[in-house]
Amino acid sequence: MSNLPAGYAPLTVETLGARLGGLKDVASRIGGDPGTWDVREVGDGNLNLVFIVSGPTGSVVVKQALPYVRLVGDSWPLPLKRAFFEYHALTRQAARDPGVVPGVYHFDEAQALIVMEFLTPHTILRGRLIAGQKTGGLADTLGRFAARTAFRGSDLSLPTAERKADAALFLANVELCDITEGLVFTDPYFDAERNHHTAGLNPVVAMLRSDVAMKTQVQHMLTRFASNGETMLHGDLHTGSVMCTGDDVKVIDPEFACYGPMGFDLGMMLANFLMAYFSQPAHRSASDLKDFQDWILLVTQDICAAYTDEFTRLWHDERTGILYPRSLFEDQGHSSEAALTQKLAAIWQDAMGFCGIEMHRRVLSLAHNAEFETIEDETLRAGLEARNLMMGRDLILNRADTADAGALIALAQSYNERDFT
Amino acid sequence: MSNLPAGYAPLTVETLGARLGGLKDVASRIGGDPGTWDVREVGDGNLNLVFIVSGPTGSVVVKQALPYVRLVGDSWPLPLKRAFFEYHALTRQAARDPGVVPGVYHFDEAQALIVMEFLTPHTILRGRLIAGQKTGGLADTLGRFAARTAFRGSDLSLPTAERKADAALFLANVELCDITEGLVFTDPYFDAERNHHTAGLNPVVAMLRSDVAMKTQVQHMLTRFASNGETMLHGDLHTGSVMCTGDDVKVIDPEFACYGPMGFDLGMMLANFLMAYFSQPAHRSASDLKDFQDWILLVTQDICAAYTDEFTRLWHDERTGILYPRSLFEDQGHSSEAALTQKLAAIWQDAMGFCGIEMHRRVLSLAHNAEFETIEDETLRAGLEARNLMMGRDLILNRADTADAGALIALAQSYNERDFT
Repeated sequence: MSNLPAGYAPLTVETLGARLGGLKDVASRIGGDPGTWDVREVGDGNLNLVFIVSGPTGSVVVKQALPYVRLVGDSWPLPLKRAFFEYHALTRQAARDPGVVPGVYHFDEAQALIVMEFLTPHTILRGRLIAGQKTGGLADTLGRFAARTAFRGSDLSLPTAERKADAALFLANVELCDITEGLVFTDPYFDAERNHHTAGLNPVVAMLRSDVAMKTQVQHMLTRFASNGETMLHGDLHTGSVMCTGDDVKVIDPEFACYGPMGFDLGMMLANFLMAYFSQPAHRSASDLKDFQDWILLVTQDICAAYTDEFTRLWHDERTGILYPRSLFEDQGHSSEAALTQKLAAIWQDAMGFCGIEMHRRVLSLAHNAEFETIEDETLRAGLEARNLMMGRDLILNRADTADAGALIALAQSYNERDFT
Repeated sequence: MSNLPAGYAPLTVETLGARLGGLKDVASRIGGDPGTWDVREVGDGNLNLVFIVSGPTGSVVVKQALPYVRLVGDSWPLPLKRAFFEYHALTRQAARDPGVVPGVYHFDEAQALIVMEFLTPHTILRGRLIAGQKTGGLADTLGRFAARTAFRGSDLSLPTAERKADAALFLANVELCDITEGLVFTDPYFDAERNHHTAGLNPVVAMLRSDVAMKTQVQHMLTRFASNGETMLHGDLHTGSVMCTGDDVKVIDPEFACYGPMGFDLGMMLANFLMAYFSQPAHRSASDLKDFQDWILLVTQDICAAYTDEFTRLWHDERTGILYPRSLFEDQGHSSEAALTQKLAAIWQDAMGFCGIEMHRRVLSLAHNAEFETIEDETLRAGLEARNLMMGRDLILNRADTADAGALIALAQSYNERDFT
């Protein structure tokens, strides 16, 4: 802890009012006397302190980084600068897709603290999917968000000097990238110390870990994740990073932001919808099951359609960067549609690989998903997780052959009928 | 020029002695009284001032960046910081492949000046290939250099935090990357202002510039060059960046260094050997032609073999990075040979694409090659350049089908027999 910045101290319910009271903008947003503010610590994530501060005129969220991984404790140090990257990611996402990420009211680098918009009555999407709650506009918002942030953060759109400077900035978010590179791409595929999995999966896990061809493909995908800095990724775009009401959708928590391949965010998001899908038999009554599973797959398919539609629109309207310049295509009377089709196909193929890997790591590595983890019947859990694992393997090995969202959905439906345990 | 650093001034033959005389290490290397040193300006490149400074005990080379592109003049400003990147690239190359790049004696960032080893009696490889001079050890040195710098600068070898910090550093070399992205990947494919080409090529050039499928593939390769920062590239590894005697080989001038895809340096180097090959009918007598062309192709093929051999050795002996870790393969009793084979195939496929593009830009864009440019007979020149252009197109379109160095050589031999003008 000796290299903490001067003035850093983890905030508490008791100290927060005094800390924020001095910030005029924030104080006037909450209203009244800071001494009377209601402060609650609500962090249920893996890494940080999160407070809700309420007063007569409003509420704000205060997110503060701890110098270690909250899930594990101070045996796993993690630098405070992740708050810096989250702040910079939020400002870029707000510019690239206005209205989808929470507004930022204040950033204090030394305190590793962001004061931001309180989303209400939003709840975490992952919990809603477990509870069987539908949300309108989900696919459009998430598909567009992934497409807009991918396109507008890349050399398809930005002046390349700006993209390069930004990529250099985010390359310093190395410790959080380390977590992704380790926990997502590596640990699931051998008996790593921090791993755990449902006992009934042992035969399936042994099979996966001895599948050299699949591990090789995963490492090809890691190579792309680690070095192919095409665009600024959210970096952790799962259903726990989405907050919804019945008809509003927000994306939160981009502290894992880094420059990486366009297909990463999309693939991770699709994986989390597929895991929600596979887990449903444990959470729905027989009478509700089909309807809600069908709805999840419909959203999954529509996310892909929204992504493709928006990426296509941006390709035609905002292609101002150095890549596929109009000077070589439209200005010569030449079509760039084949280039667009091939680019979308490359993104899709990457997304399928990342999707399969995310489906693995959430069952085999350190950080599991509530939709599986909350299934108390271990036999049932193992059976559902096994479907998910085996489909992940299929995607990794055959990502070039999973042609489109329709093929992905059909694959999920077929794995949903199978028994691997 | 108002943003030049304080103290920067282009050196001259008259001022250089006084400037270096104060550097004890450099002065003692040259020996004697700085006032008596022999100073010659020998820069024949496109960008910089280059001096040779000689005295009683030795000689050094002094390379100083100008704040503009020397080839074009001060209408094209170019930042002095490229000397900073050249210096840092030289130190990394010296560590990754000792003895192949010139030793650095002094670096002055404000003066954008590097004092380095004087290579003698070395001459530029490009000129030697025009003159029909053979060099021993060429393929081994160049193939190993490309493999060692590629492997040892990547996440296959370096701690990833070090690779990321270094990639971030070199992302600031943005103006030199701009030159590559513009002159190499974009300008050749439309009627850009700085282009020129041999008049007799007009029909071939028109065909190339209307080949939408090929232009699309070139832009896919630009996407990889611009964002896929796998390893530190030399960035300009052509036969003008190699100095030789009959049996010694050095690599110079890495000011275009940036992090990019592994296949780039290899592909650019192969392209320059192929251009030397195609130009030979203009430079050799009928009796010498076949022997020297065969020798060039032999070197080309052996470069590929040396690259593959060295990369393979490093894969087995120095794979200490986050990619394809031994914990997932050898430590589990699993082979990583398929991963190696696939990685080498991916590098090769990229190299073939970059090779084809380099073959185009040296005939169509701003900076041409002496081996073609010095051919006074325009009809002959156009015919040889056309073979080179058409083979470049073939490589770009069919890079996935040009399986290995043998296939590349056979392709060159077949294009060497054809007439496109």
